[in-house]
Amino acid sequence: MNQERNARAFDAPAGQIEGRNALAEALKSGRTVDKVFIAAGDPDRALQRLATQAKEAGAVIVPVDRRALDAMSATHAHQGVIAQAAAHEYSSVEDMLSFAASRGEPPLLVLCDELSDPHNLGAIVRTAECAGAHGVIIPKRRSVSLNATVAKASAGAVEYMRVARVGNLNQTIAELKRRGVWIFGTAAEDSQPMYRADFTVPAAIVIGSEGAGLSPLVRKNCDMTVHIPMYGQISSLNASAAAAILLYEVVRQRKMA
Amino acid sequence: MNQERNARAFDAPAGQIEGRNALAEALKSGRTVDKVFIAAGDPDRALQRLATQAKEAGAVIVPVDRRALDAMSATHAHQGVIAQAAAHEYSSVEDMLSFAASRGEPPLLVLCDELSDPHNLGAIVRTAECAGAHGVIIPKRRSVSLNATVAKASAGAVEYMRVARVGNLNQTIAELKRRGVWIFGTAAEDSQPMYRADFTVPAAIVIGSEGAGLSPLVRKNCDMTVHIPMYGQISSLNASAAAAILLYEVVRQRKMA
Repeated sequence: MNQERNARAFDAPAGQIEGRNALAEALKSGRTVDKVFIAAGDPDRALQRLATQAKEAGAVIVPVDRRALDAMSATHAHQGVIAQAAAHEYSSVEDMLSFAASRGEPPLLVLCDELSDPHNLGAIVRTAECAGAHGVIIPKRRSVSLNATVAKASAGAVEYMRVARVGNLNQTIAELKRRGVWIFGTAAEDSQPMYRADFTVPAAIVIGSEGAGLSPLVRKNCDMTVHIPMYGQISSLNASAAAAILLYEVVRQRKMA
Repeated sequence: MNQERNARAFDAPAGQIEGRNALAEALKSGRTVDKVFIAAGDPDRALQRLATQAKEAGAVIVPVDRRALDAMSATHAHQGVIAQAAAHEYSSVEDMLSFAASRGEPPLLVLCDELSDPHNLGAIVRTAECAGAHGVIIPKRRSVSLNATVAKASAGAVEYMRVARVGNLNQTIAELKRRGVWIFGTAAEDSQPMYRADFTVPAAIVIGSEGAGLSPLVRKNCDMTVHIPMYGQISSLNASAAAAILLYEVVRQRKMA
């Protein structure tokens, strides 16, 4: 048992904040906290106050079993609370649109629908930066956040790329539509090959989760769906490979045509 | 110390063969062994014989410090030798060209120049399979081989995709040229955007290593170099993202034009 504990200590992810005082200090300093895992059913008042404070600062509160906290913990002194700090400050959708306007370019955004793998999100941020996209949008819940693993996988691109975290992806899609941005989803059926779509318009490309693809409501809200043609035996591309292929088809149409 | 040993045991990579009998049995059964790490300077005759036998079966012999073997070992009974088995049987360049001919398609191959990250190689095999490429070629030395991590990262694509392991990438390039295959390298300088290249010819795309890009001799041997246009602050794409973008530009030109 003690061996396992010691082994785990080496794996503590950067940006993990354990214990009440550590979280209180992080919030006081204005550091962006993405998620707070809190012992479910703990009646302690001080813990509840801390959770409320974190929620007001924009964090998502996730009640978990105390054993789950023990397993996550690197210090083994978590006092019922473990939080994840963001590796970089978040931007806003508004700021992305202003940035595109300031460059005189039609917006190019990537919406990630519930990605769970930090390497995928990091790779998407990196490729989006290289392709000249104006922002990457992720949902607050059921998605990996901008943590240290994502930052590392992005090879430094999180420093330059605007990443926004939104409460509800479908509301963001509705807002983008009102602002004249076309929403492109990816789906195997009932869609045209991406090469036939017109990506020279203001565009947001929605990338589905690794397992399930686009959630039904998000798919319904897309202005159009496109597919990447597949010629092999396996039926799907990795989410970050799909994003790279789509983003560079946009580049081709916008810059090379 | 003992804690560290126990922790490591959980990390033993699938396909790792430890000890003399285990390696002798693997060779006897005809299993493909990629690499044999052997204690440098060990005068033991039986160990030398085993190394010779493995080499004749196609493995690369890598003499290492005994402490390196200790660190690699999951069993702590490596007896001076640890080998890596391939997760899947290798194919040959000849077989790839025949496969392309049998489908009536101009060959589309991916040459990986000294990739070290198994996730990158796995991702490239997966995307190559989806794009309908006929094979992925890796060098025997200074490259990750077709191990269990690569197989997992490929999401099963190693079962369908031909992967060849060659002794000398430059000799393979020369042979491919004789067979009418054009070699496309990627380089930032002195090259045209990939969208302007003609990928409808028989083509092999060379993907450089994560750190250094193409080795100078490989670059010199390419028929032409192309680049993926970059519009951001960071200067390079991940190797598997670059491969995905290039492979799907080939798809566009061959299938959509």
